[in-house]
Amino acid sequence: MNHTLNDLQALAINMIKQEKWLKKPVFLYEPVNYAMSQGGKRIRPLFVLLAADMFGFKSMEKCRSAAVAIEVLHNFTLLHDDIMDNSPFRRGKPSVHKQYNTNMAILSGDTMFAIAIEKVFESEEHIAGKLAKVLAKTAIEICEGQALDMEFETRKDVTIEEYIEMVRLKTSVLIGAALKMGAMIATANTKDIELLVNFGENIGIAFQIQDDILDCWGNIETFGKIKGKDICDNKKTFLYLKALEIADNENKGKLLQLFSDKEMEQTEKINKVIALYENLNIRNIAENMMKLYTEKAFINLQNISVIPSFKTNLFNFANTLLTRKK
Amino acid sequence: MNHTLNDLQALAINMIKQEKWLKKPVFLYEPVNYAMSQGGKRIRPLFVLLAADMFGFKSMEKCRSAAVAIEVLHNFTLLHDDIMDNSPFRRGKPSVHKQYNTNMAILSGDTMFAIAIEKVFESEEHIAGKLAKVLAKTAIEICEGQALDMEFETRKDVTIEEYIEMVRLKTSVLIGAALKMGAMIATANTKDIELLVNFGENIGIAFQIQDDILDCWGNIETFGKIKGKDICDNKKTFLYLKALEIADNENKGKLLQLFSDKEMEQTEKINKVIALYENLNIRNIAENMMKLYTEKAFINLQNISVIPSFKTNLFNFANTLLTRKK
Repeated sequence: MNHTLNDLQALAINMIKQEKWLKKPVFLYEPVNYAMSQGGKRIRPLFVLLAADMFGFKSMEKCRSAAVAIEVLHNFTLLHDDIMDNSPFRRGKPSVHKQYNTNMAILSGDTMFAIAIEKVFESEEHIAGKLAKVLAKTAIEICEGQALDMEFETRKDVTIEEYIEMVRLKTSVLIGAALKMGAMIATANTKDIELLVNFGENIGIAFQIQDDILDCWGNIETFGKIKGKDICDNKKTFLYLKALEIADNENKGKLLQLFSDKEMEQTEKINKVIALYENLNIRNIAENMMKLYTEKAFINLQNISVIPSFKTNLFNFANTLLTRKK
Repeated sequence: MNHTLNDLQALAINMIKQEKWLKKPVFLYEPVNYAMSQGGKRIRPLFVLLAADMFGFKSMEKCRSAAVAIEVLHNFTLLHDDIMDNSPFRRGKPSVHKQYNTNMAILSGDTMFAIAIEKVFESEEHIAGKLAKVLAKTAIEICEGQALDMEFETRKDVTIEEYIEMVRLKTSVLIGAALKMGAMIATANTKDIELLVNFGENIGIAFQIQDDILDCWGNIETFGKIKGKDICDNKKTFLYLKALEIADNENKGKLLQLFSDKEMEQTEKINKVIALYENLNIRNIAENMMKLYTEKAFINLQNISVIPSFKTNLFNFANTLLTRKK
């Protein structure tokens, strides 16, 4: 471990900031530039750096193209997801398809995917192809996750197990991939890389369950999202699926009714659903589930064959994310 | 040269046919399977095989993943283009976004792009990364070409030079890439690869000018498309741009008027535009331009350092495409 967490965080943000996205044709690259300039915490590039640093790798510069690539890939998926979900905003600003139009959003998203793959070929030759392969596999899995998420909207029999697998594919594999790329650049061994990927995928699932919890019980001022947005959107979250699983017929009927009611005023609906969740102890159950995945993650981290002090940054950063109120 | 053109054509078609596209989640892969099962001449996979064979490479099996990858990439671009152009049909059947829906078409297109990249990693390790890099660069260029094409719709000052560059990016670079991949697998030298890419890009431009010509003067029965479709769509083809360039003010005004008229009956509009083109000798000019690019292409082919008889298949196949009436 050669860097402080603060240094790596600043570095990850800077790496994205230093990229030039605007080129010709402007019609294509202006939306790319817009998407890549909306800020964000650059968590995935940071995971690349944290992984490489953990294995004692010194040159963060050699991680640059992988860090940039994973962030571009991430933003490509957000961009196309926003079209599919018809989300008007992203990070408080109009989403790309609203700022420009749907066709430009489809095309600039495609371009960003291609840029992500091309980017890793700025890495050294012995590793570039391997990184591209990771990106391609990850992209396929993210699409599979998004497909499951869309499919779930039309299904009434989604299980918790299926939900966790959807979350793993849609969001966690990208964290696993970021860590994997950093570890590969640092020439970590296969066993350690596998453990690190497992850490990333489990911690990613914990993040999502946390997101589901914060939607209902987050501090509105710090969470930065509208309370109960998932409920308004009738999203099949962990909370909803767990409630359906354990509720008696009466409560189950109530919940199904609330989620299919199109007349009810939103605040009333949100309050009623949350009350029902609390009645069923769902918050506790979800928090325990989140802890379970966090523990699974940390056991994998522990088993990686580097001295414990080298794992501190990654451990601390994961904990920061897990205790966030926003 | 170890194979006949017929053998390679059959092989290219079979390689695509033998792939299994359907897997879980069905919601995602059914549109992929639909898109990949609509037939087509599999011209790009054939170019991969023709290039490798030209350099005396014997194992067409080792070209399989590149051949499949380039066809998947091609179909991904068609799929997203059909959404952007709102085209209801592709190869006489409903396009993917009509058969399923726009969201599924966006997502399965993304997946196909990822599949194309992942596919090349089934090639031998020393070449796989290099092939992925070619695909990524090519995908970026195709997006740039599509962006230019969309941008041209809103512009009144598009030059022939810009049109040719758009065509090069949108359609020709993919032919160049197919040939390049085949040549790379056959370990051709850098100079020969460059010549072959130039052949591909020039012949691709010739194909597009031919397409523009056939839209007006193709044999309706064999061409298989509606006559004058480009005119109905107000497409800025080579014919249109050339006509605007050389027409006197009166004819220029007529053409602009015809292309902005939204009331006129389609057959009348088509006939009037074609008459105007004929009056301006546009067909001849376009045919000469097509010949020019064909000659450029064949000079590059001639300069490749393999014995002439090894180039026969590629030469014959290009000629077949250039004399097609459909």
